[in-house]
Amino acid sequence: MTMVPEDERRDEPARTPPTVVWHAGESSRADRQRLLGQRGGTVWLTGLSGSGKSTIAARIEARLLAAGRACYRLDGDNLRLGINADLAFGAADRRENVRRTGEIAALLADAGLVAIACLISPYREDRARVRTAHERTGVAFLEVHVDAPLAVAESRDPKGLYARARRGEIRGFTGIDDPFEPPERPDLRLETARRSIDACADALLDTIVQHGLVPPMGPLPPE
Amino acid sequence: MTMVPEDERRDEPARTPPTVVWHAGESSRADRQRLLGQRGGTVWLTGLSGSGKSTIAARIEARLLAAGRACYRLDGDNLRLGINADLAFGAADRRENVRRTGEIAALLADAGLVAIACLISPYREDRARVRTAHERTGVAFLEVHVDAPLAVAESRDPKGLYARARRGEIRGFTGIDDPFEPPERPDLRLETARRSIDACADALLDTIVQHGLVPPMGPLPPE
Repeated sequence: MTMVPEDERRDEPARTPPTVVWHAGESSRADRQRLLGQRGGTVWLTGLSGSGKSTIAARIEARLLAAGRACYRLDGDNLRLGINADLAFGAADRRENVRRTGEIAALLADAGLVAIACLISPYREDRARVRTAHERTGVAFLEVHVDAPLAVAESRDPKGLYARARRGEIRGFTGIDDPFEPPERPDLRLETARRSIDACADALLDTIVQHGLVPPMGPLPPE
Repeated sequence: MTMVPEDERRDEPARTPPTVVWHAGESSRADRQRLLGQRGGTVWLTGLSGSGKSTIAARIEARLLAAGRACYRLDGDNLRLGINADLAFGAADRRENVRRTGEIAALLADAGLVAIACLISPYREDRARVRTAHERTGVAFLEVHVDAPLAVAESRDPKGLYARARRGEIRGFTGIDDPFEPPERPDLRLETARRSIDACADALLDTIVQHGLVPPMGPLPPE
């Protein structure tokens, strides 16, 4: 057995007859959105290691759930222990990591959820590709730059990785010997060195509402 | 640049220090389940091309949505046009296709949805691996054999693929020159040559309720 059935192949009419055909089903994204009472979409947090992406993602997940909004957090590290566990070294794997995470976020958003992706995703081109994958199908996409100066992120060093990178134990570490390309026109920029996590979460939730991913949320319910 | 930052690497303590660490966040699966009013889980439809997997998946998706249950359909063909578009030929790609689909289903189920996966997934070992990935994290997994005799599936031939396989234009086609390994102990077997799509959908929905993925559903609302 060396071939997969052609109906499991990529649809590339120029090379093979079209055998992979989209199955639209009986239900639409609008049906799912109606059920959940929200439009959904992807919120993509990009930034240096230690910038606060995971912390902010966890906070807005909790706030959205408390407000009755369906959401799911895609933490880059967590995916690295699951679907992306086969990816390891090199530029190609890094790009593939961002691509897959983007596709999964788009599926969750198509399901009507707010997908909250947080991963370094240092390259502009890779993030642009994710945005395109969303816009192609009309799924909302917000790029959020979780922005802390390198010195601040390095001083936090929650996993001790900057120290190891400085000692030369890690090569190609973003911010040390590999670039972080900041978004040129992010939908939101959160300066975590100057504002509290809750203030950042407030600003992000406002943006999520303003872009119509979820309806306006009332005040926090009492504990 | 030839290396990814170590904090994006697979957690393999035997080879590298643990740098990919699970971020638990502030919210639990139980929080998400409570919001949606259901436990969620994965329903995995396996069977020959033409057996009726996609049709049944679309029908139960519509029925679940009509009953107010959050769900999402992962059609193998549709994923081949997105996250799995890089996979094409050979046994390794086929296995990877099933693995990724399983991981995505597990994420959706962890989000509290009923994930409805439909793809040939012909090999027992690959499906067993998907089940293990679910059970490892306590996510419900139902394996459903959509079972039609080869002669029936071939006579349906909705995409004309059996005809092409018989003419030798497609190699490694499941049921023709590549095996389908039927589940030995499926959670449900649906004989689509003997029962209508709606009867199959009824049986599957009963099983979904019996296994606690969603609470009991009332009668269909009027159109």
